[in-house]
Order: sequence, then structure tokens, then C-alpha cells
Amino acid sequence: MFALNPHPSGRHFLQIPGPTNVPDRVLRAIDQPTIDHRGPAFGQLGLAVLAGLKHVFRTESPVLIFPASGTGAWEAALVNTLSPGDTVLMAETGHFASLWRRLAGRLGLEVDCLESDWRHPADPQAIGARLAQDTQHRIKAVCVVHNETSTGVTSDIAAVRAAIDQAGHPALLMVDTISSLGSIDYRHDEWGVDVTVAGSQKGLMLPPGLSFNAIGPRALAAAGQARLPRSYWDWREMLVANERGYFPYTPATNLLYGLHEALAMLREEGLPQVYARHRRHAHATRLAVAAWELELLCLDPAQCSPALTAVLMPGGHSADAFRQRALERFDISLGQGLGKLADRVFRIGHLGYFNDLMLCGTLAGVEMGLAAAGVPHRAGGVQAAMAFLAQTPAGQPA
Amino acid sequence: MFALNPHPSGRHFLQIPGPTNVPDRVLRAIDQPTIDHRGPAFGQLGLAVLAGLKHVFRTESPVLIFPASGTGAWEAALVNTLSPGDTVLMAETGHFASLWRRLAGRLGLEVDCLESDWRHPADPQAIGARLAQDTQHRIKAVCVVHNETSTGVTSDIAAVRAAIDQAGHPALLMVDTISSLGSIDYRHDEWGVDVTVAGSQKGLMLPPGLSFNAIGPRALAAAGQARLPRSYWDWREMLVANERGYFPYTPATNLLYGLHEALAMLREEGLPQVYARHRRHAHATRLAVAAWELELLCLDPAQCSPALTAVLMPGGHSADAFRQRALERFDISLGQGLGKLADRVFRIGHLGYFNDLMLCGTLAGVEMGLAAAGVPHRAGGVQAAMAFLAQTPAGQPA
Amino acid sequence: MFALNPHPSGRHFLQIPGPTNVPDRVLRAIDQPTIDHRGPAFGQLGLAVLAGLKHVFRTESPVLIFPASGTGAWEAALVNTLSPGDTVLMAETGHFASLWRRLAGRLGLEVDCLESDWRHPADPQAIGARLAQDTQHRIKAVCVVHNETSTGVTSDIAAVRAAIDQAGHPALLMVDTISSLGSIDYRHDEWGVDVTVAGSQKGLMLPPGLSFNAIGPRALAAAGQARLPRSYWDWREMLVANERGYFPYTPATNLLYGLHEALAMLREEGLPQVYARHRRHAHATRLAVAAWELELLCLDPAQCSPALTAVLMPGGHSADAFRQRALERFDISLGQGLGKLADRVFRIGHLGYFNDLMLCGTLAGVEMGLAAAGVPHRAGGVQAAMAFLAQTPAGQPA
Amino acid sequence: MFALNPHPSGRHFLQIPGPTNVPDRVLRAIDQPTIDHRGPAFGQLGLAVLAGLKHVFRTESPVLIFPASGTGAWEAALVNTLSPGDTVLMAETGHFASLWRRLAGRLGLEVDCLESDWRHPADPQAIGARLAQDTQHRIKAVCVVHNETSTGVTSDIAAVRAAIDQAGHPALLMVDTISSLGSIDYRHDEWGVDVTVAGSQKGLMLPPGLSFNAIGPRALAAAGQARLPRSYWDWREMLVANERGYFPYTPATNLLYGLHEALAMLREEGLPQVYARHRRHAHATRLAVAAWELELLCLDPAQCSPALTAVLMPGGHSADAFRQRALERFDISLGQGLGKLADRVFRIGHLGYFNDLMLCGTLAGVEMGLAAAGVPHRAGGVQAAMAFLAQTPAGQPA
Repeated sequence: MFALNPHPSGRHFLQIPGPTNVPDRVLRAIDQPTIDHRGPAFGQLGLAVLAGLKHVFRTESPVLIFPASGTGAWEAALVNTLSPGDTVLMAETGHFASLWRRLAGRLGLEVDCLESDWRHPADPQAIGARLAQDTQHRIKAVCVVHNETSTGVTSDIAAVRAAIDQAGHPALLMVDTISSLGSIDYRHDEWGVDVTVAGSQKGLMLPPGLSFNAIGPRALAAAGQARLPRSYWDWREMLVANERGYFPYTPATNLLYGLHEALAMLREEGLPQVYARHRRHAHATRLAVAAWELELLCLDPAQCSPALTAVLMPGGHSADAFRQRALERFDISLGQGLGKLADRVFRIGHLGYFNDLMLCGTLAGVEMGLAAAGVPHRAGGVQAAMAFLAQTPAGQPA
Repeated sequence: MFALNPHPSGRHFLQIPGPTNVPDRVLRAIDQPTIDHRGPAFGQLGLAVLAGLKHVFRTESPVLIFPASGTGAWEAALVNTLSPGDTVLMAETGHFASLWRRLAGRLGLEVDCLESDWRHPADPQAIGARLAQDTQHRIKAVCVVHNETSTGVTSDIAAVRAAIDQAGHPALLMVDTISSLGSIDYRHDEWGVDVTVAGSQKGLMLPPGLSFNAIGPRALAAAGQARLPRSYWDWREMLVANERGYFPYTPATNLLYGLHEALAMLREEGLPQVYARHRRHAHATRLAVAAWELELLCLDPAQCSPALTAVLMPGGHSADAFRQRALERFDISLGQGLGKLADRVFRIGHLGYFNDLMLCGTLAGVEMGLAAAGVPHRAGGVQAAMAFLAQTPAGQPA
Repeated sequence: MFALNPHPSGRHFLQIPGPTNVPDRVLRAIDQPTIDHRGPAFGQLGLAVLAGLKHVFRTESPVLIFPASGTGAWEAALVNTLSPGDTVLMAETGHFASLWRRLAGRLGLEVDCLESDWRHPADPQAIGARLAQDTQHRIKAVCVVHNETSTGVTSDIAAVRAAIDQAGHPALLMVDTISSLGSIDYRHDEWGVDVTVAGSQKGLMLPPGLSFNAIGPRALAAAGQARLPRSYWDWREMLVANERGYFPYTPATNLLYGLHEALAMLREEGLPQVYARHRRHAHATRLAVAAWELELLCLDPAQCSPALTAVLMPGGHSADAFRQRALERFDISLGQGLGKLADRVFRIGHLGYFNDLMLCGTLAGVEMGLAAAGVPHRAGGVQAAMAFLAQTPAGQPA
Repeated sequence: MFALNPHPSGRHFLQIPGPTNVPDRVLRAIDQPTIDHRGPAFGQLGLAVLAGLKHVFRTESPVLIFPASGTGAWEAALVNTLSPGDTVLMAETGHFASLWRRLAGRLGLEVDCLESDWRHPADPQAIGARLAQDTQHRIKAVCVVHNETSTGVTSDIAAVRAAIDQAGHPALLMVDTISSLGSIDYRHDEWGVDVTVAGSQKGLMLPPGLSFNAIGPRALAAAGQARLPRSYWDWREMLVANERGYFPYTPATNLLYGLHEALAMLREEGLPQVYARHRRHAHATRLAVAAWELELLCLDPAQCSPALTAVLMPGGHSADAFRQRALERFDISLGQGLGKLADRVFRIGHLGYFNDLMLCGTLAGVEMGLAAAGVPHRAGGVQAAMAFLAQTPAGQPA
């Protein structure tokens, strides 16, 4: 069997902002015999997970499951609703928004990009202004990343929706929740989102390999007119097959077992409790960063991510060298800086299947890693987080 | 945890022609903690499975892994090598060939189709003749399914290659090995295949969720010219990232653990032994069908599939009613008739992780199911298979 | 990881009369993190399994769990109730009865033995007669094996109880149900058993490692007087700790997870259905033996075991050579002849987690093994079993 | 499946001094199909684990495996070597030594007890003195617990051996290594131990359910003369069966799979590295206790246990109330005070499959638990441990 970990003893701390630590319950559910994807037992499984997903997306609309990475769900959102040459307005809030933008370009779409310094959320006012200028409605979709995994900044989707409405613009609103779904409060229906894109390997606590599109009625209507070529990602056959719990091609059956279990776990804990837990751990993490006298990448305190925290390295110090040292010495994986943040930030994932002591171990890994790598900082970050956690019962967020 | 099986006791017999019975070793390998897909341990895993796959495809060329179903790998083969309006020549040997054909049409390709009665393999002469007519080389690719999962007929890929060569035609040769790879002798390099398409859930003994493209040098060159839009399926970024064992987007890490283990198992048994085992079990199955006095769908004895056997129902009897009865009474899943064969054939999968006694149990399930469903047949199929199996040591095929 | 099976492909057929095939559900339950055996979650687990066991033993009395093999539970039954020099009356119906007898001797007990030809059940009349002779009540316990695993003969416990009562003898009745509990109808309370001995690895569908004593009120009273030295096996501390779901020393926690799951499975199927299933499979097996023209070891048709079938080899043929050949060629483990039956019988286990097609595969392994080993027999055993199974729906025993 | 943990998210911290955190590799090894305990594959497994155990015990003598808790191995050591009325000299260093003493009494042995304050190791001088007085050699065995799990005090076995030798006394030396084997340097042969007793659920990283006797030549000779009744624990049949890798009664097969894997892990890490890791974590823990200004139970700094640390509660505070609070709030299990230490100490397990960040999480759980429970202490324990761990690379003990 493949040897996962060169460290000889103890559990690895997987504290990148996804894939996250998969619960034993979910791994054990996946570790069951594959069944006939056209048999009656499968139909029951399919109906159960398709129904359960609606609860997590907070929608009455259909949610589709692709045997694919989140990148595939980005592509699915675009090819099902748009035609060659259509324009999409992208709020380029970080590396993943920029990847989505590039993907759109490759598919033959025009991209109108609202660039940013990657330290702020999407700007609803700027979106509204751009849409207001687009009197010919060439912009067919507004694409926003709810929680930018590369920066740790969360955008206000309800405000984006309001800006679109205020501009009286018919563009569809597409939202990437890959690193927020199941970790940060999200409401597909209430916030008027047309397509929500998500993946399995973050707040849903699964291994990577599944991705999702939640599809509002306007997006569904657009799918009838869209002319981008599509087959694997096509919503239409999927929707028909899903009615009875099946799929138009072989689904990733064993990952669906895991999804069934993960949805049960989220239900058992309760979504409000899940969100509060993430906010609490994010607050404790920021207290640690402050105690270390390091700088958060996110400049807008109100929009710091509950799922991960991106930390700027002191000038002249390599984030990657620090992360490598922490991995070698303390068996912890931290997220790297991506794109223009490469080697300048590290990211602490505190999402998914997680608790107070896992957070303390994680922050200890960062603090000792900083020491071991010779990065200037003050000690006391773990202490600061602990003081907060001890005072604040788990049910209560910051 | 999801209750997979309403039967209260004993193992289900999953004898559809895929997904196949996943070995415990593979399930247990998948049931390990997800790791950082950008960390050093992952790079070793990636390099190991990418190298190991070449052995199974019998190629020195790169093999790419998509977190997707086999359907996605069909799409990948086409969008990476072709441009809008290009013509592909499809040997429509059965339901899956017809699905691939439809997919090509949806992507904006012209499809020139060599239809068949779904009881014979692809006809190399007909392919050669069609290519000879195409003096302007509008046909850019010839697409053949190696082992048609819907019919149990295997096509002779080397003969197709020879026919293309004899016609002096530059079309690429694309071969679907979804239900043959790891079960039936296949040689990507020796047979001059340009793109081989495969999936995880059959001879590779994995759950569904991974698919593959093996890419010969001419296909790689074509990828530089192809103009179909593509992003998720794009070979180019994948090839760059694969060099060090990584992927351009989050891979299905846990299924890759399973792939690592399955490749080890195929190596341990030896590919020639694996192929001989499948031929032996297919022969025993056909002896049973003959004893039952039922008719094989495959009319060409030399091309009957080593991986599955499709059996025609006696007139006036529903294959689906029989399969349902066998499932209810004997906890065995058999493959249904697909497309124009719906309700007229049933398919016995005897591929993947399998042995003599599993085959005897399977054939007993068919024979008792025929009796329970009132389908006219002679008893003695299991007996005939056993007589052959007992006389023929496992190392020796029929 | 230890390579369990030198056979390269397919599932092993573990058809010894125990350990039996452990269901995936049970293995997965065992494969969970060990918890604090003194914490509150453990107490709930303990109470649940202790209560669930009573249902399977059909008793209102306490059932104790030892982290030990069944041999340990034999010892526990004796050391808790008897004193040095006490006499026990043993019905020596086979190898396991003879081992229990030897164990009693080693502990310093006198053993009065009712020998047999190992082809019949315990003889209630003989037991009654011996007790009637024992006017001084030196016999303190009558020990009977409910289902003799070495011979495939089941004894009538209710009749033994009646014989003891008729003799008006105060001896305790101790019954070994190691290979019957969870497979063959058994009623601790209704049949007036004083101590029932059982193990985990047969009808309870668990790996070996747990064993049990169900303790009636007279046995409990005897425990207060018994003077054999005891500590590990001592019922008294165990009973006190069990009241709140705990144990006096570290229990085999992970096997208890499996027990919890196995008890749920037996409840789901229903004990009457479980017993009927075993009788049905035993009947089919005997039809196969008859078709092979081989001889059953059990001479009393009414007492043939529902859990296993012992078959006599034709004169001059080695049972062990046959079993070895079947293992090498067909990857099936059959039970060996034990004690004075060594090399003269083989035993087919058809108990535990089992179904019709597993039985057909098993009988095919025997029939092909007989052929491969050159053992004289008629073909057609599998055919005979199938004819019965196909006609008789699963809910109906023979 | 049994719900192990009422906490909704994240891994439980199992930081009692055993059972310890079982590695996924070991759990997955256990989660494999049970095999025939009399077949050839089993013989290979048996030989492999029996040989591997010798390496861990540092002995050339046989090591026996019982399907039993450690308590059973205590009993086995005594019943195989002693006769009714024999005297054993017990160094009563804590709760487990007192349990072993009680067990000896129940078996009919006389116990000469060297009592202690439970804060010091066994006293070699006192042992030597007592033996010197025993001119008639009524003392047949000296029993010492190597690492007293209830107190966190390690005794010097080599010094005990020297004291026995110096007294010229023929008593056997029996050592309990239940919580030291695989965690603390131990040498059965070099230290002249006659019987070593051990269990699976601590340094061997397995679930509970297996226990061990390593048997030196003098103990083996004694077994020929001993007259305590024994059967389940009898070494003699076991030794014969073990020669070919088998057992005289059904072994706990699946736990043996786990043992095979755990032995491989200890070999991969290297025993010296394993011991150094434990010393390092124990040192860090004691630094935390000092920073908290709490008192260690162990008064002899040179003999503080590398495997666990017992901490005295400040007067008037309940250790059990603190532990319950820590469990409820932070999902950590800590060891309770046992026997006369009940409610007065808590114990931190830092043995088995463990690493720096797990230790930091553990100490954070203690420190925050102290705060949450209102136990007087200074903050800064985690900080002190981290300062040490960050400065001291993993390869280097304190």
C-alpha cells in the first residue's frame, strides 16, 4: 500500500484549506462494495444524496453532481448557460477567480474583469457600476467566488445580488462556493444565485472527486438557449436521470456513499452550529496571528474568511521555506501562496472536520515552525488562541 | 451508513460488466487519509501511478488521469485533437459506440458512421474502404470500441490499424478500452493507437471516478492544432504538471491510492495471466450458455468477449423481468440490455477481481434465476462450466 | 500489510465451520478508533451489547463477555461453578467435547464420560441413566455440546434437560453453543440451561477473540460456593462492572464495535429467518452429498447440523489431500477431520453470513475439488442443490 | 454503527495511558477478511508475528500470544510457574501492582508485599533485603511492574535483577511491561527477566485483545514443576503449536493482522527512535506541568515515565470533575486516578502512535480544561512545551 507519510509516528495535520481531514465515518462509508449503478439500491442512494444536497445549498432548485473536480463544475456552469462570444463579468478577487477567468477565456467567452489587490472581497458597487454601463446587456453572467481560497477573503453575495438588481441587469449570478459550502453560511435561493459551483473536498469533508452545480430557474432557462458545445457537463440529461436517482453515465458510486454519510454528519451537527464553529476557529486563529505580530492578508476585518486564514510573511522571508520546515519538523501541511502571492503568504486551513484541540495543534505547528525556520515573530499565538477558546464555549462564535 | 443491500445475509454478486467487484485491498487503500495534493508525498504517488499505467496500456507514451467517468475520457480524446466541423468515422458496434457517436455530434463534429447489427465486431475492411473513398482526408479520426460492453463482442484493433495504414489515410485511431483494459490483451504502442480511452471501474478493479487517455505522438501533435474549446480536459497543462507527479487541478486523491494498489495487484498476477484468466472464464460461461440452449448475442465465435457474455432471451420473455427475479431471489446483479437490445439480452460480467468459484456462483445465479423466472432453458449450464474448469488448471485458458 | 491469500484474483471461500465470513459491515465497524474503556461513550456501548446478547441467547439472565477464545469460556463455565475434585458428566460426542473433557481434567475435576461413535448426538437416556445411578450427587454438572463442530451432529438440549429433571438430579446443565449460537435455534431460559458457552467467530459473524457465558440463576448461586481458583474468568467482579456497561479489566473494545453491528444484523434479519436460512442451506448441502454418492458422518437424519456438514471420504482416499487440492485449485478452505476423524472426513461450513450463491460456489468448489483430486464420486451435486434452492424461496426452509 | 463520540466534529484526543491511538494502518490491517486458522497462509502469519515480537521484547526466548487482556497474561505468568501455596514477592508500586497482587492471592498464592507510597519506583535494595531474609527460599517469584500506569513511575529492572542475584536467591523475576513495551527501553534477555508480561493496546498501538508472555529458560523449566491448575493459559501446548505458526485454540486472527502491521511500523521507525520520541514527549509534558505550577506524582525525577505523566490536583479540587469538563468541552480523554489516587490525580498518556502536534493539542486540552474547570494554575504550559519541542529536533530526546 502506498506509504502516505514519511513521518514515522502520529497523525499528519492536513491544514491546507482543502482537501480537508476526512472523518473516519466518511472514509469507512466509502470503503464499501461498489453496487450496480442501475439497480434499485442505487436509485435510493441517488435520491437521498440529491435531496440532502439541497439542504446544504439552501435551495429548492436541483443540485447536480459531477464525477469531477471543482474545476469541472466551473466549466459546467459556463457551458450550460452561455454561447460563444458571450461576455462574463469576473470579480478577480484572487488566484481561483483568476483561474476561473482563464477557463472562461479558453471556452471562447469574453471576460470583463474587475481586478483587485487580492486583499479585499468582490466590490458590489463596482459590479453594479459596470453592469449599469452595459446598456446593451452583453454581459451574460457575473461570476464571484464566495470564499477566495487563495486569500482568505469572503465576499458578500447578497450585496452582489442587490447591486445586480439595482442595475436592473439580466446577467446571471454565478457563485463559486468550493471552499465555503458546508463551512460558511450560504443561501442559494435567498440570495438569488443562479448557479452555485461547489466541490466535495472542503466543508463537505469528502475526498476530492465530486463537484456540484445548484441551478436556479433562470439558469435552467438559459441552458435551453446556450450554444457552447457540451456533453459530459450537460445539465439536461442529468436532470432527467436524476429524477429517479440515477445518472446518465457511471457515477462515482463510492464517493456518493461518502457524501451520504457527510450529509448526515452536517445534519446531525446542524448547519448553524457548523457555521458558528468555523467562525469561532477563524477568530482564534486571527488572535494567534495578531499575537505573532504577523499581518493578515485580508484587509477587511468584516470579511476575513471563517474557513482559512492567509498570513503575509515578513519581508525577505520565504513562505515556502517556512512551510517546508514545518512539514519536515512537525508533520503539518499548510497552504502555499498561489499566483502572485507565491512564496509571500501561507494559509492555515481551519475548515471541515475540525475541533478546538486540532486547532491548537495546528497553531502550535505554525508557531514552532516559525521558530524552527527563523521567521521573526513573537511567541504566544497559541496562548492567545487558547485563552479565547477556553473562555468561549463551543456553541458560541466569536 | 447507507444500507447497500436489502438482502439480509451474504455477499452480493455484482456481475454486471462493470463496475466490477472491488478487491478489499483496493477499498482499504482508498480508505486512507487524504493528503496534500501539492506536497512531496503526493508527487511520489503521482509519479508511481503514472508510470504504472503505462505498463497496463503497453505504451511508452504518456497516460493522463482525469477525475471523471469514462464518458469524460471520450470527450477528452475528441476535444484535444479535433476542430469544429471535423469528421470522425465511428464503427457503431453497439450501445456504447452509439453514445460516443452522439457525444461527438454534440461537440460539433461530423460523424460518419459504420452501422452494424450489434452482433459483430468493427469491420476493418469497411473502415479501410470508407477511408479510401475519403481522398480529401476530411475524416480526422477513426473511433472504435475495443470491447463493446453492450454486446460482448471484441474488435480486432490491430486489423483496424492495418486497414487505415493500407488506405494510406492520416486519420487518428482512437480506441475505447473502457471494458477491456486490464482484462483483455491490449497494446497501445504495438497496435499504433493514437488515443486510448479507459476507465477505472472494470478491469482496473477500482470504483468508478477515474478515466484515462493514453496519447500517442501523432495525437499529441494534433493537440497543438485542435480548435475545439477545452479547459478541464486539456492535455497540455496536465502533461506539464504530470512531469513531477502533480495535476493542474485537485485530483481524486483517494481513488489514486486505489489505483496504486490495483496496479500492484495486476503486476503481481502478471498481465498474461490476467488475460488468460478472463479467456478461461469466458469460455466456461459460453459452455454454460450452450448447455442452457440459449443464444449468444455475439455471432463471431472468434470475437466473443473475454470480459462479459451477452445472452439473447428466448422470444417473448423479458430479460429485465428475469434479471429482477434473479436479483430478488439470489442477490445477483446482471447487466441489462441497452439501447436497441433493451429487455432482449442480459449480460454476465466475468471480469476484474474474479475466480472460478465466483464464476460458478454467478452461473448458478443465472441458471436458478432462469428457473425461478420461468424462462425456457435446459438445466446443466453450471455443470458444463464446472466440467471445463475442473479439467483445465487456472493457468491454462480455453 | 500481510498478504492473506496467495491466489492472485477473486475472493477466498472461507467455508470451514468457523471462523466464518465476516460481513463488511462488521469489519468496518471494528475499523474505528478505539475509545476510553472507562468513558461515558463506552458505557453506552457496553450496555447495548450486553442487552443485545440476551436476545440471541434467549435469556433474561446475564451474559458475560470475555476477551478470549471459546476455549476460555469453557474454562470460565467450570471454574466459576465447581470445586476441586467435583465430577462432571461429559457427553463425548466429538472432538470438541473431548477437548472440553480434557480441559476439565486439567483443572482438577473428575470427568465421567459418555463416549460415542462421534456419529450421533448426545443421548438423553444415557445421561438420565447415569444421573439416576449417582444417588450421592457427586456429579455437579452435565456438559453437552449443542452442535458438535467436528461431526456436524446437533444434540437435543431440551431432551437432555428433561432427562436431568426426570432423574431428579441437581447437576448443573452446561451447554457449548460455540458453533450453534446465531445459526441454530437455541433457548437458554426455555430449555433450563444453567451455563451457556459461546464464541464470536461462527454464527455471530465476528472475528475470533470474544467468548461468552450466559449464566442462569442456579449457576450464579453455585458461583458463591465454588472453590476452583479463578481471577480472569471470575464472574462476580464482571457482573458488578457490567451493570453500568463496563468491565473489570480492559475489554477488546474494537471487537465489541463489531459485536454491536453483528447483533444489529441478526435483529434486522430476524432470528427465525436466520435459523431457517441455515436449515435450508444444510438441506441443499446434504442433497449435494447424496448426489455425489458420498456418505454423511451424521447417521441420525433428524440431527444433522444446520451449520456444517461433515462428509466421509471413500476408503483409501485422504481427506487432507483433497482439501489441499481444493485450496490450491479453487481457493476454498474446507474443514479438516479432527481427532480420530483426522484425514477421514472433510467438513463444509455453511453458517454465518451466507447466501444461496455463496453456497453454490462452495459446493462447486467441493465437486470440482473431488474431480481434481481423483476422489470417486458422481457429478451432479451442485445441480441437485440448485434444483432445491431454485424451487424453495429463501424464506422457506427445507 | 455505534456512535463513538457525542462530539459532532473533529477527532477525539484519546490521551489516557492506553488504549492508545491506533494508527490507520493498523486498523486497516485488522479490517481484512478472517482466514482459516489452520491453513497455510495462517502459518506464515503466525511465524511472522512470533518472530517479530522477539525483536520488541529483545529476547531469543519464545514469546506467547494469548487472545486475552493483559490481566490474562498476568495470570498466565503465575499459573504456569507456581504451585498452590507458593510465595511471591510483589513490589506494590501502584494500582496495577496491587491488582496483580490481588490476582495472585485469588489463585491461591501467598503474597509478600513491599508496599510504597505510589510515588516511587520499586526499591531494589528492599527487594534484595527481603530475599536475603528468605533463607528457605519460600519466595518463588519476584513481581515488578516496569512502568506503573497508575502513577507514571518507571522501575529499574536491571537493578532489581542485580539485587536478586546479589541475594543469591533463585526466585523467578516476572515483569509487567503492559504500558512500557514498545514505548520504553526494555531488554528481556539482557536484564535476565524470567517472564515478561505485556499487552497489545499501549506501545504496540493495537486495540486491546491480545496479551503476551515472554518466557526465559528458567521459567520454562519451572513450568514443568508448577502445579497450579491451568488449561487456557498453559504454555506447553502453545509452544508446540507455535513451532509451525499455529495455536492450540482459535487465535484472534484479525488482531494478529494488526500486530503484523504494528511490528512493521516499530521496525520502520526503529526502537531507539521510538524510545527517544517517548522520552522527548514526556520531558515536554513535565515542562508544561511545571509551568502550570502543578505537582508531579512521581517524586523521583530520574524515574518519571516516558509513557505517561500523572499530575496531582491542587487540594480541594476533584480530578474527575476536571477530566469530565475537559472531555465535555475539548473532546479529550485523560486518565483517571486509580485506587487510593482516585479523584486526586489525572494522567496524561503520551505513548504509542504520537507526535509533537498531537502532544501540543493534548497539553492545550489540559490547560484549557484546567481553566474551564476553575482549577488554580498558571497559564503557559503549552508555551513551555513548545519552546522545548521547537528547539529540540525530533531525533533528539530531552
